[in-house]
Amino acid sequence: MSHNTFGHLFRVTTWGESHGPALGCVVDGCPPGLSLTAEDIQVWLNRRKPGGSKFVTQRQEPDAVRILSGVFSDDRTTGQVTTGTPISLMIENMDQRSKDYSEIARAFRPGHADHAYFAKYGVRDYRGGGRSSARETAARVAGGAVARKILGDGVRIRAALVQMGPHLIDRSRWDWDQCEQNPFWCPDAQTAALWEDYLDGVRKAGSSIGAVVEVVAEGVPAGWGAPLYGKLDAELAGALMSINAAKGVEIGAGFDAATLSGEDNADQMRMGPDGPVFGSNHAGGVLGGISTGQAVVARVAFKPTSSILSPRQTVNEDGQEVDLRTKGRHDPCVGIRAVPVVEAMTACVLADAFLRHRGQTGGGAFVPGGQGRV
Amino acid sequence: MSHNTFGHLFRVTTWGESHGPALGCVVDGCPPGLSLTAEDIQVWLNRRKPGGSKFVTQRQEPDAVRILSGVFSDDRTTGQVTTGTPISLMIENMDQRSKDYSEIARAFRPGHADHAYFAKYGVRDYRGGGRSSARETAARVAGGAVARKILGDGVRIRAALVQMGPHLIDRSRWDWDQCEQNPFWCPDAQTAALWEDYLDGVRKAGSSIGAVVEVVAEGVPAGWGAPLYGKLDAELAGALMSINAAKGVEIGAGFDAATLSGEDNADQMRMGPDGPVFGSNHAGGVLGGISTGQAVVARVAFKPTSSILSPRQTVNEDGQEVDLRTKGRHDPCVGIRAVPVVEAMTACVLADAFLRHRGQTGGGAFVPGGQGRV
Amino acid sequence: MSHNTFGHLFRVTTWGESHGPALGCVVDGCPPGLSLTAEDIQVWLNRRKPGGSKFVTQRQEPDAVRILSGVFSDDRTTGQVTTGTPISLMIENMDQRSKDYSEIARAFRPGHADHAYFAKYGVRDYRGGGRSSARETAARVAGGAVARKILGDGVRIRAALVQMGPHLIDRSRWDWDQCEQNPFWCPDAQTAALWEDYLDGVRKAGSSIGAVVEVVAEGVPAGWGAPLYGKLDAELAGALMSINAAKGVEIGAGFDAATLSGEDNADQMRMGPDGPVFGSNHAGGVLGGISTGQAVVARVAFKPTSSILSPRQTVNEDGQEVDLRTKGRHDPCVGIRAVPVVEAMTACVLADAFLRHRGQTGGGAFVPGGQGRV
Amino acid sequence: MSHNTFGHLFRVTTWGESHGPALGCVVDGCPPGLSLTAEDIQVWLNRRKPGGSKFVTQRQEPDAVRILSGVFSDDRTTGQVTTGTPISLMIENMDQRSKDYSEIARAFRPGHADHAYFAKYGVRDYRGGGRSSARETAARVAGGAVARKILGDGVRIRAALVQMGPHLIDRSRWDWDQCEQNPFWCPDAQTAALWEDYLDGVRKAGSSIGAVVEVVAEGVPAGWGAPLYGKLDAELAGALMSINAAKGVEIGAGFDAATLSGEDNADQMRMGPDGPVFGSNHAGGVLGGISTGQAVVARVAFKPTSSILSPRQTVNEDGQEVDLRTKGRHDPCVGIRAVPVVEAMTACVLADAFLRHRGQTGGGAFVPGGQGRV
Repeated sequence: MSHNTFGHLFRVTTWGESHGPALGCVVDGCPPGLSLTAEDIQVWLNRRKPGGSKFVTQRQEPDAVRILSGVFSDDRTTGQVTTGTPISLMIENMDQRSKDYSEIARAFRPGHADHAYFAKYGVRDYRGGGRSSARETAARVAGGAVARKILGDGVRIRAALVQMGPHLIDRSRWDWDQCEQNPFWCPDAQTAALWEDYLDGVRKAGSSIGAVVEVVAEGVPAGWGAPLYGKLDAELAGALMSINAAKGVEIGAGFDAATLSGEDNADQMRMGPDGPVFGSNHAGGVLGGISTGQAVVARVAFKPTSSILSPRQTVNEDGQEVDLRTKGRHDPCVGIRAVPVVEAMTACVLADAFLRHRGQTGGGAFVPGGQGRV
Repeated sequence: MSHNTFGHLFRVTTWGESHGPALGCVVDGCPPGLSLTAEDIQVWLNRRKPGGSKFVTQRQEPDAVRILSGVFSDDRTTGQVTTGTPISLMIENMDQRSKDYSEIARAFRPGHADHAYFAKYGVRDYRGGGRSSARETAARVAGGAVARKILGDGVRIRAALVQMGPHLIDRSRWDWDQCEQNPFWCPDAQTAALWEDYLDGVRKAGSSIGAVVEVVAEGVPAGWGAPLYGKLDAELAGALMSINAAKGVEIGAGFDAATLSGEDNADQMRMGPDGPVFGSNHAGGVLGGISTGQAVVARVAFKPTSSILSPRQTVNEDGQEVDLRTKGRHDPCVGIRAVPVVEAMTACVLADAFLRHRGQTGGGAFVPGGQGRV
Repeated sequence: MSHNTFGHLFRVTTWGESHGPALGCVVDGCPPGLSLTAEDIQVWLNRRKPGGSKFVTQRQEPDAVRILSGVFSDDRTTGQVTTGTPISLMIENMDQRSKDYSEIARAFRPGHADHAYFAKYGVRDYRGGGRSSARETAARVAGGAVARKILGDGVRIRAALVQMGPHLIDRSRWDWDQCEQNPFWCPDAQTAALWEDYLDGVRKAGSSIGAVVEVVAEGVPAGWGAPLYGKLDAELAGALMSINAAKGVEIGAGFDAATLSGEDNADQMRMGPDGPVFGSNHAGGVLGGISTGQAVVARVAFKPTSSILSPRQTVNEDGQEVDLRTKGRHDPCVGIRAVPVVEAMTACVLADAFLRHRGQTGGGAFVPGGQGRV
Repeated sequence: MSHNTFGHLFRVTTWGESHGPALGCVVDGCPPGLSLTAEDIQVWLNRRKPGGSKFVTQRQEPDAVRILSGVFSDDRTTGQVTTGTPISLMIENMDQRSKDYSEIARAFRPGHADHAYFAKYGVRDYRGGGRSSARETAARVAGGAVARKILGDGVRIRAALVQMGPHLIDRSRWDWDQCEQNPFWCPDAQTAALWEDYLDGVRKAGSSIGAVVEVVAEGVPAGWGAPLYGKLDAELAGALMSINAAKGVEIGAGFDAATLSGEDNADQMRMGPDGPVFGSNHAGGVLGGISTGQAVVARVAFKPTSSILSPRQTVNEDGQEVDLRTKGRHDPCVGIRAVPVVEAMTACVLADAFLRHRGQTGGGAFVPGGQGRV
């Protein structure tokens, strides 16, 4: 991860501002011969795009993606496939609402990146947050769609909202299918109903609230990750923390591990037909920075968006103290639309780890009692 | 971060196994002309080294560091200074206790990286955990000592243990001076006393317990960090999660931010004599991936070491089910010795961010009402 | 340099195929506040674009560049300026001539990358050479235009064609102004006239010929470059050799240095008002991988394009032996249009070296007899 | 390549100064399970080490290498093998002759890196050239020895001196076996005899002379290399130009390609039993940045060492003009000892390209008429 490029062998470079003509990414290092069409990417973008319910920003963006390079089809390919060269993806901005930016052009919205960008660069595209807008995450989701193609059907990455403000889901009711049935990606139908009322109140009050997203990647074989500074969990932590509004990341038991004894925390092993079977997954599928073969599990805490209707104290570029009230179209709970983004970043981390593992070792894993790498 | 190298402009590459002849690191990209002696590094290593109290491993290691390259002195330099070339640091292992490894040579200690390394590489140095041993963190502390030289006295990085098992400190009693007065780096004297009894019980039971470390970096100017995948908090999250036994990282309000409203979370600003003054620091000193000028605050959750005296179920390389009891010298609470490591990784992240910021922009920050970059 | 990304702090990622909808690049790490418009880039693209004379390919491409991100202007900026965020540049392909590719769709054009791409990827966009087309160099020239902005007016980078086939220029007649007066970027008017006849013969014969380009960067201060694997000349060699059809790179005396004695090769120094003055420049402005303050001088050898009208023996994807004659629009001497590309890559290398030098050291150079860094 | 680290997946970080206590490298990303002992590395170091004949520096260095990490052996491994973790290699300096450096401590030896290092860093270890000494190349050779293990016996990398000053070998007499029979790595016995007299004259005159080294890598399969900025020839050019005293690099026909017509330059293909067979190798085994399956051929021009007995004009750190005569132990033709270094860098480039190719594609190559990747 460097500047605006994510990854080592599988690399995604994103670009674009909230109210510029377009945004996109260049996906480099993709293996050749993978089936890839715009529709394959669009399906994931549609999950993130704004305007889907009253609980997300009302900005209307089709988020239609174009593939500008890196794919090819003729009568001998099985449809359109990747060629191994850079895949340029572009999404045009359609609903950059013409508005009066005079209030925020010079004043720094508290909790936003306005002041930090000014301090660093001395100039900033303040329209809709410019580069620091969550709109950039569309490019991440597009890149993640390509990463999923690399991982194939064997690796299944799903995320869900598990906490909104003080309200946690009941894990005993976890049902992945429910995620598609409510506007929150909530796996617990009862909690989803509760959230609906709760968030409606937050929204009407012009306020906002934080949330926690959990991602689970099943089917990750043992052996991915590269100690010590390329640990799978370290890469995941960096990738997830790079998402807008993220303030915390934990793997497996996470912060709860601080309260566990060594006896309770260690995941015991027995032999199954295909390798070790673990009695628990406090590790979240990663030990020593390398995948164990269990599901990779991480959680990300998102702060509430700082765009709220109540005026807050701040200063402006001229050093004057002002009070600022952020009008406009916003998400009352940015954690909701972060769900597909968390999935996408997880996919990117795993695809990169897979390719690097294959590069160093040839791929596969050693299984106890087995005969070498399988 | 890639493989065993951390950083972009300021780079630390570590090497070495727990029971090999030595371990160390190569620090590359250090600015020239900085005063640097082995003693400057040793003072930090001494804080991490084993054998200091009954609450840490009884392995006896002087952890004496040698500087093999990258420094120079003659009658014109002010003592020994860095030359801008790679600084090679080496620490010889002295107390690789001769022991019988037959029990763990083939069996995978649950909760440890044994199985994951085997799955990935098919071969592993099982003596003392090999590369996955916490002993490697000595090299991080050595690298961090050089990073501190780059940051200078203006940036002060201090960490403390704020939670041990279920026992949190009382933040109203926070006193940094106390950290040096107890064997836990605990800033709260009363809690330290409580921990002493508590951890003694854990230790005598042959058990272990998790912990949370908090790091505070004061004096970081606004403007460090490089969106979007080189965000200061993303780099920090990756660096801290790469420390052995880390399972969670949070910045500022962290996971608590999930429960906050936008009104409560946004840190309001007023003007002070040297720039904006913030009314709170829920952001932990980072917004949009760029430092704000407030203290950078992060917390890291550490799991309990998995080396415990109770036998646990596991399997071995031959696919047989066995029960394993980890004998030997261990830390009942690895979080304690992680404190200097968290400081070191924070120093490395900040030094790298400083150099990159200076590279892209020339350095300094724009101050509201000011006249350009200062 | 990795995959399709060039540079460390100043990074250019290019994408696009010859006959795809568009090509472009993402320029990342650019300092903020630099004046930058599409016209600033277009002026350099116009020097490279096809169709300018009968000596270059007759493909008609306006090569009109659009800036999609990374710039901003309002009433307080001095025109449109860079913001420090990624600059996405796009050039639409207009003249992808509809043609019959059946002959080259399966057969490998000798001397081209066709077979190598097939061997690596198993699939290739054969239309116009796909990704391996010299058309990609438009993106390099666009990136180079941004690099020039970073370097400012103090650094002047100019390239010229100094050899075409067996015909070398007479260096005693070197006149930079002449480069703009002939279709060859030839600094020697008499040789340009000779080349006109010579290349006309090559062109009419449906043949092609190689060439040598020399680039001179004046105004590069002493101190840029980072030993040992980031040496300024090593980076330059890598960057120039990455240009299509390049087969050799030399710095300063280059291959002639092999025939020189130590007495003749070493550039002697005397003191001038602003620092050392050198009696010669066999070093080409780089010693130990670091700029000396002299002009940086490099030469690049380009092979003849392999697209010629004479049939050549080759094989196809099915393993059949065939004879192939490359029809279509081609450059009889690709070295000509490589001139602006060599300039652009040199600019990118120098901009990156400048930012990295500033990052590590704060910038500037020590001057003998001076008082520290200036 | 960045700072003092070479490579992407296979990475070599070197450290050390000419007259410091030691020098070495950290080799990271090596595949696990490769047989590797100090002797495996020593055999290559012995080819480079000083003191072997009167034609190389008389400094006496055993160049004995120690492996400090990254290998393991027990009763189940087949001897000592790599573990996949960083391999730290160290060579102690033994013959740092105690001498009076007062003359060169402040004066800049013309043609050396003295002034450039001073300009950049303001401080330099002037003893024996410090970091810019060719002594650093021992670490490259050590790293190259590991790279050869990765490549295996199927890839054979050999280099030879093909030109010394104005004297070229007769290629019709090329015999690799001769390289081991003379002190020049000369493949032409008659020319070696001529060089013996010639270089003796140069040496006795206290002068020095340049040279050209050619490297040939046989057995490289088609498909290695990653367009566009990670082209195999671009990586090779950068790696070879990073060797001390290198001033030019060419691939295949190299600078001669500038004089060739398209008809003569393109290597025609016919089908052989295992894939395409080429009628010539002007490409030097690389097209479009990807290996073709032919031998990879490169040449490197080395300047004469600037350490000569004749006094040369220069300046010192105080800005005074002085005349300097470089006493001490030097190579009259540094190109000779560069031969094993050129081999080593070629091995490193190829090993890295191999691993990256395997990472992106799974490895192997498509063969015309074949059934997919083999």
